[in-house]
Amino acid sequence: MLLARAITLVESARPEHQSLARTALDTLLADQAAQASFRIGISGAPGVGKSTFIESFGLHLINKGHRVAVLAVDPSSALSKGSILGDKTRMEKLSVRDEAFIRPSPAGDSLGGVARKTRETILLVEAAGYDTILIETVGVGQSEVTVHGMCDAFVLLLQPGAGDELQGIKRGIVEMADLLVVNKADGDREKAANQTRAHYWNAAHLLPPKASGWTPEVLLCSALEAQGIADIWDALERYRQQTSENGFYDKNRTLQAKKWFREALMDGLTAHFFATPGVQQLLAELEPQVENQLISAYSAAERMIRFWAGEKWY
Amino acid sequence: MLLARAITLVESARPEHQSLARTALDTLLADQAAQASFRIGISGAPGVGKSTFIESFGLHLINKGHRVAVLAVDPSSALSKGSILGDKTRMEKLSVRDEAFIRPSPAGDSLGGVARKTRETILLVEAAGYDTILIETVGVGQSEVTVHGMCDAFVLLLQPGAGDELQGIKRGIVEMADLLVVNKADGDREKAANQTRAHYWNAAHLLPPKASGWTPEVLLCSALEAQGIADIWDALERYRQQTSENGFYDKNRTLQAKKWFREALMDGLTAHFFATPGVQQLLAELEPQVENQLISAYSAAERMIRFWAGEKWY
Repeated sequence: MLLARAITLVESARPEHQSLARTALDTLLADQAAQASFRIGISGAPGVGKSTFIESFGLHLINKGHRVAVLAVDPSSALSKGSILGDKTRMEKLSVRDEAFIRPSPAGDSLGGVARKTRETILLVEAAGYDTILIETVGVGQSEVTVHGMCDAFVLLLQPGAGDELQGIKRGIVEMADLLVVNKADGDREKAANQTRAHYWNAAHLLPPKASGWTPEVLLCSALEAQGIADIWDALERYRQQTSENGFYDKNRTLQAKKWFREALMDGLTAHFFATPGVQQLLAELEPQVENQLISAYSAAERMIRFWAGEKWY
Repeated sequence: MLLARAITLVESARPEHQSLARTALDTLLADQAAQASFRIGISGAPGVGKSTFIESFGLHLINKGHRVAVLAVDPSSALSKGSILGDKTRMEKLSVRDEAFIRPSPAGDSLGGVARKTRETILLVEAAGYDTILIETVGVGQSEVTVHGMCDAFVLLLQPGAGDELQGIKRGIVEMADLLVVNKADGDREKAANQTRAHYWNAAHLLPPKASGWTPEVLLCSALEAQGIADIWDALERYRQQTSENGFYDKNRTLQAKKWFREALMDGLTAHFFATPGVQQLLAELEPQVENQLISAYSAAERMIRFWAGEKWY
């Protein structure tokens, strides 16, 4: 499959592969008018039922006529040599559908590296005609902030009967959510689910208004029994409608693209600098002197920049 | 005065001035063995009595035989064309002493710029023989985090009778403090001061243990009546003793120096990049295309780095 091969190029550690993928991507981007896509981040602590939810939600979207790509951002995948996020075997019914494309988290030695690959993959799957992109992340560390920074809307999954701490939700995550969904609201957990909903409804309404002008909603669902899924999509469509009308949707995309551009520039610049012959050696020589306060950090930095600017031959 | 002139060079916007100051500084640093200094950050919301405290505290230190430098970090000074932090007229008794050196916040168009100048000034005043450096900052924005990153110990001033929100203390600041001091514990405010002390003692003891191995203390004082000042210095000396013995003091300094070095490198590199002829023009051309998603951020960044590497003639 062409798309999978293009993504493999993007994820490759070899610069010439990445370049090739970018050239292909630019051709794709130039060929089509900027197509309307909807990028939705989905987070929640382990055990909250993310895969079941994404499968149920994805099948609902396909039935509504959408083409759905499921990507994942899991910074721990570098250490564990693989991520269970976005694993096809966990989404059996979704993964066999032609209208769905599922890709596990790319590997990377840093969250920044994983994020870069995921951002390029988003553009690729959109160019390949997928209009709804679900980006799954695990509810720990900095990955939510990163995924929030590449999405149009952010959904936080909760489980019945517990506050932030027991949910394993870090500070600041609830603040980012446009939609809070209490999953597993079935059987004898319904009462607890309602309490959790009330708790988070209060919490969400105590927060300062969002830049999007949107007031977060708190909904119940049972992904296992496919209950409440339609309401969640309806809420997200309302969100998209409202933020498109007030201009936030496009403005947010523009800001995100601008930020990626600056980050990519800094990354490229740094890589170029440290790859320059002699720079690493000089660093190894100066760093101990800086650490022992024999020379100031600024004077050492100045020496390195001067060396690099003078010695470069390309 | 030589010191003041050296600092003026450091604070200058002209690169040749900064270079001159760095050369002078390196000579000074090389001339002396790394002298034992104690860098103490002092923060607190406006109205908490920072100047009165610093005057009282500084005079106490001078009486103990120390030479005291008072610096300030106020990122708002760029906008207001001047900072009231570190203003000599607010510390009349301290400013007339030969053993004290007071310098208001440097101007700068960013917190990063202000921080850079302050870090170099710290090295200068230490080279000039000041052994205790008090770095004042105003209790708003990111400046506490910045000051915390250039200090050995961090003191947070509080006022009687209010929680974090009423104190104007942002999240995360209490976590950084090694010493919390309830000022204005005099007259009919003593009861309220004791309550505030108890409140913050509980808060501080609920926090996870610090990397320094030090347990934060909460003390009372009246800077106006010069009460409790000796206890504060005693606590800071205990802190210094304990963290010197367990190795944190030196390790923290080394990490800070290393971090400044990396930051200074990145700053220098970025400045060099954007000063390269043609780079700004290419940026202006590519950025709108990135924002409108006609090319990917990564492909645009790659084009810029290539242009810059190929076109440079120095």
